[in-house]
Amino acid sequence: MIDLDAIKDSYATTPSKIVLLVVDGLGGLPHPETKRSELEHANIPNLDHLAQESACGLTVPVMPGVAPGSGPGHLALFGYDPLKYLIGRGALEALGIEVDLRRGDISARGNFCTADQEGNLVDRRAGRVPSEVTIPLCRDLDQIQIEGVDLRVYPVEGYRFVLHLRGEGLSDMVTETDPQRTGVSALDVKALSPDGEKTASIVNEFVSQARGILKEEERANMVLLRGFSGLPNLPSMGEAYRLSPAAIAAYPMYRGLSTIVGMKVIPTGRTFSDELDTLYEHYEDHDFFYVHYKPADAAGEDGNFEAKVKALEDLDKHIPRLLELKPDVLAIAGDHATPAIMAAHSWHPVPFLLHSQWTLGEGVESFSERSFSMGPLGRIPATQIMLLALAHSGKLTKFGP
Amino acid sequence: MIDLDAIKDSYATTPSKIVLLVVDGLGGLPHPETKRSELEHANIPNLDHLAQESACGLTVPVMPGVAPGSGPGHLALFGYDPLKYLIGRGALEALGIEVDLRRGDISARGNFCTADQEGNLVDRRAGRVPSEVTIPLCRDLDQIQIEGVDLRVYPVEGYRFVLHLRGEGLSDMVTETDPQRTGVSALDVKALSPDGEKTASIVNEFVSQARGILKEEERANMVLLRGFSGLPNLPSMGEAYRLSPAAIAAYPMYRGLSTIVGMKVIPTGRTFSDELDTLYEHYEDHDFFYVHYKPADAAGEDGNFEAKVKALEDLDKHIPRLLELKPDVLAIAGDHATPAIMAAHSWHPVPFLLHSQWTLGEGVESFSERSFSMGPLGRIPATQIMLLALAHSGKLTKFGP
Repeated sequence: MIDLDAIKDSYATTPSKIVLLVVDGLGGLPHPETKRSELEHANIPNLDHLAQESACGLTVPVMPGVAPGSGPGHLALFGYDPLKYLIGRGALEALGIEVDLRRGDISARGNFCTADQEGNLVDRRAGRVPSEVTIPLCRDLDQIQIEGVDLRVYPVEGYRFVLHLRGEGLSDMVTETDPQRTGVSALDVKALSPDGEKTASIVNEFVSQARGILKEEERANMVLLRGFSGLPNLPSMGEAYRLSPAAIAAYPMYRGLSTIVGMKVIPTGRTFSDELDTLYEHYEDHDFFYVHYKPADAAGEDGNFEAKVKALEDLDKHIPRLLELKPDVLAIAGDHATPAIMAAHSWHPVPFLLHSQWTLGEGVESFSERSFSMGPLGRIPATQIMLLALAHSGKLTKFGP
Repeated sequence: MIDLDAIKDSYATTPSKIVLLVVDGLGGLPHPETKRSELEHANIPNLDHLAQESACGLTVPVMPGVAPGSGPGHLALFGYDPLKYLIGRGALEALGIEVDLRRGDISARGNFCTADQEGNLVDRRAGRVPSEVTIPLCRDLDQIQIEGVDLRVYPVEGYRFVLHLRGEGLSDMVTETDPQRTGVSALDVKALSPDGEKTASIVNEFVSQARGILKEEERANMVLLRGFSGLPNLPSMGEAYRLSPAAIAAYPMYRGLSTIVGMKVIPTGRTFSDELDTLYEHYEDHDFFYVHYKPADAAGEDGNFEAKVKALEDLDKHIPRLLELKPDVLAIAGDHATPAIMAAHSWHPVPFLLHSQWTLGEGVESFSERSFSMGPLGRIPATQIMLLALAHSGKLTKFGP
């Protein structure tokens, strides 16, 4: 864990390499008809073989019953108590597109959406309107001037954008405009405390002007804003663990997360194959690599069991290439479960595998929730895997005489 | 857990229904001759079948080695850290018979008992003297007047009564009169701190006058008092979890407990069948129901293995009726183990089952300690089951972006 004072002098910088592969939404649940999970259905011979010479177990992302978003789920894997270190959605999105966030800035996650003539929401994602449409609209909204604040609108992708505010006296103590359902209008922003008055007023003015600019649009004729947040204050992974950590992630939000925890974000392409290329190219430059795999979570959130099985099988095909690097520690973890039968993140414990020179005799039979529930690592808080990775790579020295 | 600040905004009020069936003393131990526990001996086809489509595991009531009373055992199941939220026996008993307790009141649990001519105790329960004898005696004791205090004596049942004191400067910092064994006399009450002086003096005066009033009685010729306590200050379950919780329990102490944690106590009859009738009648009125089953604990405390087996089989017969309600979550838990071979509460982990739409593929083979020790829920603190129940019924929203 990142702030375990008692062992802070036990970390040593060494040449050994750690690769942490985070499979987003890795965990699943058994299908009621087959009684087997996505991992149990999937044909994943490389992962199964790896499991047979690795230490395996389950991680609890936060605590039983609590389903984390990818933000807290990842923070936990990096060693941060997710109940203590909270990151707002807006700040995450902004960092993800590499906005230069500073203390005092406030960012919000924006959706272009569709409203009817009464102003009631019809589609909170504007029909998943494409970037070709929204990039020019972001430029238009970026022109909006409001006194007392420097305001920017950045496109993220498709219907998603970031509203970024810089000025004096801004605050995250405001409500959201997104009612989280259709059939009603967007909400006014209200201050949650006197600190939030100025920001609430600015955002309401922005939405009002935006409505005017967008009103002739067919789909993206309104905006929704949520997750107003500033730059969180997290200890740096590199400093805490005496690492030179790097992040390789195709999706923006995970690059944002990595920046917040002090990792160097290495630019990469759009696919996992691109990510592995990047890993190979920069392998000499760092001693810790976070690599992210998204497709299993996307399929799980869509409730598509077969697609999640396929995404896991696709991942499996890349494993040999990963192993050829011979990292001193290869850890495979998930930020949370995304069971296809639930079509959402869940609270269930997530398979965790750690492979090092010390695990060759440990192994379990196969890579699955059920198999790993019997694994030698047991059931541990997600926040403890960094300690295991550091220990297995010789970077954590003995504690006490 | 009831006071997990970081997720306090994650609870949502929804129409889904949770039924928490607490089988008092559910856990047991294998018999030395058969090596099988009460649950393993019992013919419980409904519970076994339920286990095959439920998420199962074991709960640790407090921590390894610590055997809780039903008070702490239940508090933990409701989400209260039992080491932090302490409730005295007297307050529990008083609330159980619906005494209107207020801050500053002190209550004690009373036993009518039998003493010999030297004043030494012969029977700490006065031969389990019946209510027809003790109700008039309570009225006599209720007449006792002591300066500076308003004193009441309420019958509970048989040899049990409650002494209720209201006045200025009362305190729970006093010792008990019950020596917890026969062959010696009852103890004088002593103050544990200066705060307790007034209360100690009042109670000793009460006992002295009671001895006089009761001295001609054949069995109930003396009183024992213990568990001096005031009204504890617990956060309300309903407020914390955004529930409308109700309690259905035939035995007074559990109604008292339920009141303390903010549940609505629904009057019911004397048997579990009556409790189920009450559940059916009021099912539309609440979203959370605590239902209590006592007979397994009573048999266990008597050291009667066969009787405990039968009590579990009797419970099993009611399960189909419970399932016909189709609660969104049915959780079956125990406040502690009461192994018949120990004839007492023990510290052993207790079987826990949760049935919801998400558990149909999870199942284990049968409903027993051994089977559940391999279950997907693992071994968790009892304080975490409410989070699972809320998550499975859609009442706990995702944590973080």
